Amino acid sequence: AAERFTGPGDLQRLTRPTDAHKGDFGRVLVVGGGPYTGAPALAAQAALRAGADLATVLTPEPVADQVQGFSEDLIVRGLPGARIEPTHVSTILEAAADQDVLILGPGLGAADPTREAVGQLLEAYEGKAVVDADAISVVSAVETDASLILTPHRGEFEGLGGESADDRDGWATSAGRVAADLGQTLLLKGPHDVITDGDRTRINRTGNPGMTVGGTGDVLAGVTGATFATLDPVPAAAVAAYLTGMAGDLAAESRNGGLLASDLLGTLPSALGGEQA
Amino acid sequence: AAERFTGPGDLQRLTRPTDAHKGDFGRVLVVGGGPYTGAPALAAQAALRAGADLATVLTPEPVADQVQGFSEDLIVRGLPGARIEPTHVSTILEAAADQDVLILGPGLGAADPTREAVGQLLEAYEGKAVVDADAISVVSAVETDASLILTPHRGEFEGLGGESADDRDGWATSAGRVAADLGQTLLLKGPHDVITDGDRTRINRTGNPGMTVGGTGDVLAGVTGATFATLDPVPAAAVAAYLTGMAGDLAAESRNGGLLASDLLGTLPSALGGEQA
Amino acid sequence: AAERFTGPGDLQRLTRPTDAHKGDFGRVLVVGGGPYTGAPALAAQAALRAGADLATVLTPEPVADQVQGFSEDLIVRGLPGARIEPTHVSTILEAAADQDVLILGPGLGAADPTREAVGQLLEAYEGKAVVDADAISVVSAVETDASLILTPHRGEFEGLGGESADDRDGWATSAGRVAADLGQTLLLKGPHDVITDGDRTRINRTGNPGMTVGGTGDVLAGVTGATFATLDPVPAAAVAAYLTGMAGDLAAESRNGGLLASDLLGTLPSALGGEQA
Amino acid sequence: AAERFTGPGDLQRLTRPTDAHKGDFGRVLVVGGGPYTGAPALAAQAALRAGADLATVLTPEPVADQVQGFSEDLIVRGLPGARIEPTHVSTILEAAADQDVLILGPGLGAADPTREAVGQLLEAYEGKAVVDADAISVVSAVETDASLILTPHRGEFEGLGGESADDRDGWATSAGRVAADLGQTLLLKGPHDVITDGDRTRINRTGNPGMTVGGTGDVLAGVTGATFATLDPVPAAAVAAYLTGMAGDLAAESRNGGLLASDLLGTLPSALGGEQA
Repeated sequence: AAERFTGPGDLQRLTRPTDAHKGDFGRVLVVGGGPYTGAPALAAQAALRAGADLATVLTPEPVADQVQGFSEDLIVRGLPGARIEPTHVSTILEAAADQDVLILGPGLGAADPTREAVGQLLEAYEGKAVVDADAISVVSAVETDASLILTPHRGEFEGLGGESADDRDGWATSAGRVAADLGQTLLLKGPHDVITDGDRTRINRTGNPGMTVGGTGDVLAGVTGATFATLDPVPAAAVAAYLTGMAGDLAAESRNGGLLASDLLGTLPSALGGEQA
Repeated sequence: AAERFTGPGDLQRLTRPTDAHKGDFGRVLVVGGGPYTGAPALAAQAALRAGADLATVLTPEPVADQVQGFSEDLIVRGLPGARIEPTHVSTILEAAADQDVLILGPGLGAADPTREAVGQLLEAYEGKAVVDADAISVVSAVETDASLILTPHRGEFEGLGGESADDRDGWATSAGRVAADLGQTLLLKGPHDVITDGDRTRINRTGNPGMTVGGTGDVLAGVTGATFATLDPVPAAAVAAYLTGMAGDLAAESRNGGLLASDLLGTLPSALGGEQA
Repeated sequence: AAERFTGPGDLQRLTRPTDAHKGDFGRVLVVGGGPYTGAPALAAQAALRAGADLATVLTPEPVADQVQGFSEDLIVRGLPGARIEPTHVSTILEAAADQDVLILGPGLGAADPTREAVGQLLEAYEGKAVVDADAISVVSAVETDASLILTPHRGEFEGLGGESADDRDGWATSAGRVAADLGQTLLLKGPHDVITDGDRTRINRTGNPGMTVGGTGDVLAGVTGATFATLDPVPAAAVAAYLTGMAGDLAAESRNGGLLASDLLGTLPSALGGEQA
Repeated sequence: AAERFTGPGDLQRLTRPTDAHKGDFGRVLVVGGGPYTGAPALAAQAALRAGADLATVLTPEPVADQVQGFSEDLIVRGLPGARIEPTHVSTILEAAADQDVLILGPGLGAADPTREAVGQLLEAYEGKAVVDADAISVVSAVETDASLILTPHRGEFEGLGGESADDRDGWATSAGRVAADLGQTLLLKGPHDVITDGDRTRINRTGNPGMTVGGTGDVLAGVTGATFATLDPVPAAAVAAYLTGMAGDLAAESRNGGLLASDLLGTLPSALGGEQA
């Protein structure tokens, strides 16, 4: 049985065989951006840094050039218009067909047409998806055959009907209830993260207060996309929480603050290699 | 009572509690750019490196894409037209409403419509603001309920009616008089910086001649925005001057010149962590 | 006689005389991009990092600005339209006239007009060229007086009529047959790379599973362009495979994954200097 | 008397007094770009890395955004049209009025209208200028009251009427004759650089064969602009040649090739600080 707390042992699930081919370690598709530019770029780069072989971003055209500009390693496609909307759904589903994981949410914003598009995507999609940020609140309103990892912070968790709690065990119980109701996996972010599908529950204690800076949630979504490509939902979310927190701890090691989300892109490989802060 | 000279002890004010949430350490809004592009990008990145949780830039559309291109960690919004002008004031005030500190000035230029917009902003805004560069000279002509830190160099200080002086004590006295008249806090930049609200006065001795390079003032404005989010004006300005100078000293340590303002973005975390040059 | 396996000794071919002039170590022209942006940028930068003196990129205008944005060291020219097509052939041939090596393929995509343009280029060009990615499948359908190094992965190799094999020796025999038929040099990528012109065969054992990440093939194409500028096809391809694999090994040394193709740009100089992972 | 060979002692000329103000160490204006994008960006950044306080670039609009994108530390202004031409001359002269040094040449190209504009600039300008690349050949055809440092490679030197020579002393004599004829200072680039105004002659021996890569000439032009801001022409050119070569030596130290011109931006501060390769 898995231990309650995440730890370095969880990383053993990620070993790569020596006869691997391009794409074996995951093709991740980030659908995000529009009102925000940095979020999908952070998520996609984090997916690569956490071991995905290919990271593609579908994003509205006005921000596509800038997302591409952050890295030669990304594949970026622009969609017409200033935000994701229902007219994009068929294109996104087509692009998702030869991908391992869809990451839905980073930088999408909460405009009504965007939320409608997210709902239609979830109803039609049957693969694996990480659902983050403004896309989270759409989940409880739709039926989906997809296998989801949701990554809410506490406010978003309460939006899903989750009850707030006084202590870590309370949050875990409450998260387990919501996960069971949805039939999906939750990665509830907090000082200690709770990972649960209602049946199995894991607690992650890596991470630090410097990670309150904007963009760390986008990094976590990207890392989760990478781990979900090769693992089941609960271990994928547990490893992702552990890795992202450890990357933040490594980045913060010699600091009293001033941590940026993009710093985690630099420390993720060390975290993946088992380094301890 | 606070000591006269800034020092490492000032950094203790910046400790982060372990149960922090996103945004607890400050949401900073930079209003700048138009004739200049790098200035608002430096200020916003410096705010994050000094511990702010979110840095948003409002800047004219022709430079917005480039400001965003410098960092995935920034949130950038373009305003129509080539420079900030009165038509933007309501949008800026709306954006400032859920921010902790407004940084007004970096790269704005001194065009008449821009100065008019700055005046209208200061008259309507009631929160905390750092006022830098070409925005400084507008302050003496308007009534404002905002709490301001002004960051003039000596030329800008004289534009505020400040008398030049022969030595550090003279500058301190002269700065105290201007600060008292304005009812605001001054961070007067020089070989030694003077921080004063007319009542309390601090002197900062970090920094070096390599910091005469362009852009270091933008970095200081950004750092001040971050510290002002959680501290009162005089300690905020004192810590900001200390940190920025120390970041410059750390960057210059092994050099005889060739320091860039953007180098300080790299050394600010070490400065924040208490490292000494 | 050259040894069967590539090794550090191969690097001795790359020594630079002290009275060298600009361009002595190769002018490389990358023709790529359109549907993809990062690929030609990676190839061109890799050529410079492997010792080429000048790297020029001809790429469709919509991606030209972004390719340039990745590095001040590249010369980038935009061609009208969204992808390479027959109307560009005369411009490309003209540009190729004062270059040492043409790199044809990175990020071109497989659209019919692009394949037609590649065919026309190969028929008219008489110099040295590295042919990669979607351009590879065009080679068997055209007559060319050019001297080519083809860099197929196994799928592309089978598209050239190559038979798949059970072990390394089988792949080498099969690759030698295809190379002899084409009258060109093959660099067949795999866990162990096979370099052969049908007569001489070399095997390269550097590289690791982390290099399944997207973009490493573009880096290899660029490195091959640089080595081909001063060496004959088989030694050029052998050294390029060795260097790129070693750059990947150096980048992966302290990691369990998370390798990006762009990381190799940073480690190529160490590989070139003879460092061992 | 100055020694014949440049050396670390030359760096003592560059010491900064502690009461310096912004701009004391030079305002440098780069006029370049159009057909090329990276060249003016390299020159301007090199000027800052060599100690200039402000670096402004005037460049045709189609490349202005990309030049700016390389660094927050640059001030970039776009000029209408695809290349520098006579209609820009008055704007450039106006911008040059409050600058210390004009750098004319990097990436300008050799189109007739550009050469005409360079001629008009040289005839009207009376300050200090570094003349590089395609701008060099214009100098012998115009009358100018400006104080110039020309930075030709051997081909450009012969275009100025310089005779080629068999050895270093021959080049020095030949360069001295051209410099005396022009009444200007020459920095003749080669395995050993010759710096001469026809009266005084210095030889620089730093640098290495890896510096045959494209863009190193742009870096040298930028460094010369920075040193010329505070020094006379011959010592300025001598220090610039020494620094740039030393920056190249420091960058090449652990390499067998793969040096990029942009690498020198990173090592210039160490060179300036007196480090030896």
